[in-house]
Amino acid sequence: MQFLKKINSKAKVESNSGFGSNASSYGGRFINKSGKANVKKSGIGFLDSISWYHTMLNIPRWKFLVIVVLFYFLVNLFFASIYYLVGVEHLNGVNATSTLEKYGQAFFFSIQTFTTVGYGHISPSGFLASFVAAVEALFGLLSFAIATGLFYGRFSKPTAFLLFSQNALVAPFGKGTGLMLRVTPYKNTNLSDAEAKITLGMVQEEGGKLVNKFYSLELEMAKVNSLTLSWTLVHPITENSPLFNLSKEDYENIDGEVLVFLKVFDDMFSTTVVKRTSYAFSEIVYGAKFTPMFSKSSDSDRTILHVDKLNAFEKVQL
Amino acid sequence: MQFLKKINSKAKVESNSGFGSNASSYGGRFINKSGKANVKKSGIGFLDSISWYHTMLNIPRWKFLVIVVLFYFLVNLFFASIYYLVGVEHLNGVNATSTLEKYGQAFFFSIQTFTTVGYGHISPSGFLASFVAAVEALFGLLSFAIATGLFYGRFSKPTAFLLFSQNALVAPFGKGTGLMLRVTPYKNTNLSDAEAKITLGMVQEEGGKLVNKFYSLELEMAKVNSLTLSWTLVHPITENSPLFNLSKEDYENIDGEVLVFLKVFDDMFSTTVVKRTSYAFSEIVYGAKFTPMFSKSSDSDRTILHVDKLNAFEKVQL
Amino acid sequence: MQFLKKINSKAKVESNSGFGSNASSYGGRFINKSGKANVKKSGIGFLDSISWYHTMLNIPRWKFLVIVVLFYFLVNLFFASIYYLVGVEHLNGVNATSTLEKYGQAFFFSIQTFTTVGYGHISPSGFLASFVAAVEALFGLLSFAIATGLFYGRFSKPTAFLLFSQNALVAPFGKGTGLMLRVTPYKNTNLSDAEAKITLGMVQEEGGKLVNKFYSLELEMAKVNSLTLSWTLVHPITENSPLFNLSKEDYENIDGEVLVFLKVFDDMFSTTVVKRTSYAFSEIVYGAKFTPMFSKSSDSDRTILHVDKLNAFEKVQL
Amino acid sequence: MQFLKKINSKAKVESNSGFGSNASSYGGRFINKSGKANVKKSGIGFLDSISWYHTMLNIPRWKFLVIVVLFYFLVNLFFASIYYLVGVEHLNGVNATSTLEKYGQAFFFSIQTFTTVGYGHISPSGFLASFVAAVEALFGLLSFAIATGLFYGRFSKPTAFLLFSQNALVAPFGKGTGLMLRVTPYKNTNLSDAEAKITLGMVQEEGGKLVNKFYSLELEMAKVNSLTLSWTLVHPITENSPLFNLSKEDYENIDGEVLVFLKVFDDMFSTTVVKRTSYAFSEIVYGAKFTPMFSKSSDSDRTILHVDKLNAFEKVQL
Repeated sequence: MQFLKKINSKAKVESNSGFGSNASSYGGRFINKSGKANVKKSGIGFLDSISWYHTMLNIPRWKFLVIVVLFYFLVNLFFASIYYLVGVEHLNGVNATSTLEKYGQAFFFSIQTFTTVGYGHISPSGFLASFVAAVEALFGLLSFAIATGLFYGRFSKPTAFLLFSQNALVAPFGKGTGLMLRVTPYKNTNLSDAEAKITLGMVQEEGGKLVNKFYSLELEMAKVNSLTLSWTLVHPITENSPLFNLSKEDYENIDGEVLVFLKVFDDMFSTTVVKRTSYAFSEIVYGAKFTPMFSKSSDSDRTILHVDKLNAFEKVQL
Repeated sequence: MQFLKKINSKAKVESNSGFGSNASSYGGRFINKSGKANVKKSGIGFLDSISWYHTMLNIPRWKFLVIVVLFYFLVNLFFASIYYLVGVEHLNGVNATSTLEKYGQAFFFSIQTFTTVGYGHISPSGFLASFVAAVEALFGLLSFAIATGLFYGRFSKPTAFLLFSQNALVAPFGKGTGLMLRVTPYKNTNLSDAEAKITLGMVQEEGGKLVNKFYSLELEMAKVNSLTLSWTLVHPITENSPLFNLSKEDYENIDGEVLVFLKVFDDMFSTTVVKRTSYAFSEIVYGAKFTPMFSKSSDSDRTILHVDKLNAFEKVQL
Repeated sequence: MQFLKKINSKAKVESNSGFGSNASSYGGRFINKSGKANVKKSGIGFLDSISWYHTMLNIPRWKFLVIVVLFYFLVNLFFASIYYLVGVEHLNGVNATSTLEKYGQAFFFSIQTFTTVGYGHISPSGFLASFVAAVEALFGLLSFAIATGLFYGRFSKPTAFLLFSQNALVAPFGKGTGLMLRVTPYKNTNLSDAEAKITLGMVQEEGGKLVNKFYSLELEMAKVNSLTLSWTLVHPITENSPLFNLSKEDYENIDGEVLVFLKVFDDMFSTTVVKRTSYAFSEIVYGAKFTPMFSKSSDSDRTILHVDKLNAFEKVQL
Repeated sequence: MQFLKKINSKAKVESNSGFGSNASSYGGRFINKSGKANVKKSGIGFLDSISWYHTMLNIPRWKFLVIVVLFYFLVNLFFASIYYLVGVEHLNGVNATSTLEKYGQAFFFSIQTFTTVGYGHISPSGFLASFVAAVEALFGLLSFAIATGLFYGRFSKPTAFLLFSQNALVAPFGKGTGLMLRVTPYKNTNLSDAEAKITLGMVQEEGGKLVNKFYSLELEMAKVNSLTLSWTLVHPITENSPLFNLSKEDYENIDGEVLVFLKVFDDMFSTTVVKRTSYAFSEIVYGAKFTPMFSKSSDSDRTILHVDKLNAFEKVQL
């Protein structure tokens, strides 16, 4: 990758980006497409470096359910083994003769205890089996307490239900051009007081050293009162813009990254939610403009927002 | 509907309303009476376009309960069918002879498993029935975990317990007139730091094209420290107002909409809550004023707020 | 009560207090000592006028527990009656002969179903009894789901653990006097960014009509970075103060009220919490000053905050 | 400890620190290393002085689990005693002969009731035993409701997952020196809009009395847009700084404390979280600078943040 020789000297450097400036100790993107910082923590234990609760909130639904089911299965296998070791003769009602059947009945007794179903056709007798069942019932109830919390956490976690266009465009704007990207809500949410901030991150040579430089890209409109349709963020490429005079080839060859930060008040959660993304220069299309993504409904009574057209653009000559 | 020929040129246009300006691709109201944007999302799967959790929070209580009961019934019908297919002879204690009775006993066994009541007068025997019961008990517990979360979510969802008057009025104000609408809290809440914003949305012809134009309507008082009684929002119709010189007929014939946005800190939830509504021009009463809606209690010790008089007004000559 | 003839004309009126100005339709205090507005809602159904959830959160612990236990008892009496009406002969294991015993066994069966304990020594047989038990088990689980939500709500409700001094004082301050009141945290909380606002509410004659007038009382220090000890709020009674030249007799005879509003960020809840109170003029002590309420611990290693001395003051000559 | 004779008169005093100014009634640090104020409340009942819920949230995990298990054990011992007193002959299915065995079976029956497992091989008969079991089942369910709430509270409590360097440094900065300390996130969180405030607290003689004086230490950069790597807070020791002209010996001998307050928006919780700490002068290293704590990953694709190097510094000559 190449670095830009000389950035527009009129562009204002942003010093409080929160990223390190020493480019040589920096690898890859600043921010991943998903909005997470491209940083790995080391020198700290795995369990200390993650918040397992939030990991459980953020994994996809199917993974979450697989983990729940696996946990259920493994815990009961574990307790079944203990009952088996204690001796199934201490479980009244077990009438199995083969080893496998005995283990199976211990397993189902374990499940009936863990879930507190407790039919009672199998029941523990003697101190040891009763004690293990007492521990298991407590463990079961606490497990479901945690599961309840996780389910609720997954539902209620404030999330910005927003999508960003896959590409940013250098499009005609006024008499010149502008960097444009588009964002749209996609759920039945009420979003208000949206505010966006766009920052350009670039590596530059300075006194023989590679340094990360950040530039705030001023927006034509950085706030909107409500975010109900798509919102096209426009950075006018004026003579003060760090993008001034960049050519199609520059975008293709130079290593740069446009960081996007959007915060908005969500009525549904009654809180401010934040969404981030970034566009590497390779994701910027030079000479294109977005095509409209909403239209009047056939009965003229509503407006239809075509979420699937979020990234729809057409090539234009600049 | 007609469009206003010429809007007061002194009125200041608001560019960051967040609504699209292209009127021809816009249908119906901007915002529904309930405060929701009048927009339908398309091009996205149904499940992706809604947040089912928040849908469950927002539906009326009776619908929610019907869904819970239906779910309970259907899930148990489903599991009853499975037990029936597996064979009720694998359920100890089932003593039915007819098909219907067998199915009924399987159904109640299913319920006793799903709810983890597990009386045990019916109990599974053999691997298959025990396995289905194990799955059902897990499913039951997770279902109630989700129900717990939904109930809690329904209770605790921060909501602005505010009502807006059904109509907005053009009423005498000072030496001229003002656009007035009224809002009142109706629950045992403590609301403070209320802030309102009113925007006029109108369609206008501009260069042969229909465009949506928005105008911020300045309020005589846009903030109050606490919201304990009714609050009458007043937009003085001065010569800078976009409503200046509009006649009774204009309100009747012209297509316009007044968007209201109110945000307030609620002590009960310790968070900021938001409430929106809108008034189509047809909902604006020209020549009327609100009548008082609070009075001293008979023992002079409290103030009575008559919530039912929120929209009470009397006709006046302007 | 008397009204002040002539308020200091230099005092600045506050128009956005959010209280009505028409004194004749106003009864009693503006705000109760507890901080709640002294307003009763009418013209709205009881259930619509309260948020039952938040009522359950705010009632004292013992009341909450009494309600829970009563609910448990009454619901089970209800279901016991239904089982009794259906006929206890449909409950296997009931071996009672007297009416009372039958009812008692139906009651305990009901409890075992409602709580999903389901020992099974009594179990339903036949469609009707099984059906009632199925309904009760669902109802029981949902009830405990709601109870879980209520308990969690009671724990986690953000609350400002702050106490205000019972009295406000007119105390020596600088070369003149000041209105002082004191506030202190009393729990193991970390409070920061505290901000106070004090408003004077008074009834005055204006053009032959009684009107409520509000005046913002400027504070010597309206914000503190952290609230770890007591904080004495001081309004210097300068010549611009509406309290300027008020005598001891005025405070005794005149009907006035000092409204206090305090907001602070609580680390424990990670949210801003709000606390309000008010001082009627009869609660203002003229000629007194607060005595210190914290001291060095005996080992000089900590500071002791004497919460019980919050209202401790001594009389002084003004 | 000694007190500084004469503080830089150009330094601006901060009056709204929220700490008391009377040094003689003040003991030890202002703020503990953990960020909690070094204050003990007295004159208030123990239960009123703590929020037991938040105490349960903040204790370490193992302590929390020990409390849960102990509670489970003790409650069941208690109920077992009651069943024993009522008479185990009222528990059908108890076949024990010795006192210990009887008590043991009552204990396990209690557990099966408390957890609502209710196998039913032991079941209550008669009013008294049934009544105790009814009470216990309710108590059990409510206990698990509370446990569910506590678990969820522990997971979901908004916490600033930030670490501060153990030491603050007086390091070379520009042409002079600066007070530096370092902070780093250590979990998989997304932090934005970080804002820091640093205050110096010192005891000084004023008119023969010891008073606490506070000075705001201005930061070179008090805000960063995102906090993804380490952030070095720098207070330039200019001629306006209260630290101007302090020597190595002063830091060693004088009693001073640097209070740090950091607030940041956490995407994970969608709320602002706060973290505090303090550095006593004895924790300030004079003549040292931090060494870098992040580097490029071996595949150049990510940046590695070495959390364990947070406090790494090397001595330098000032």
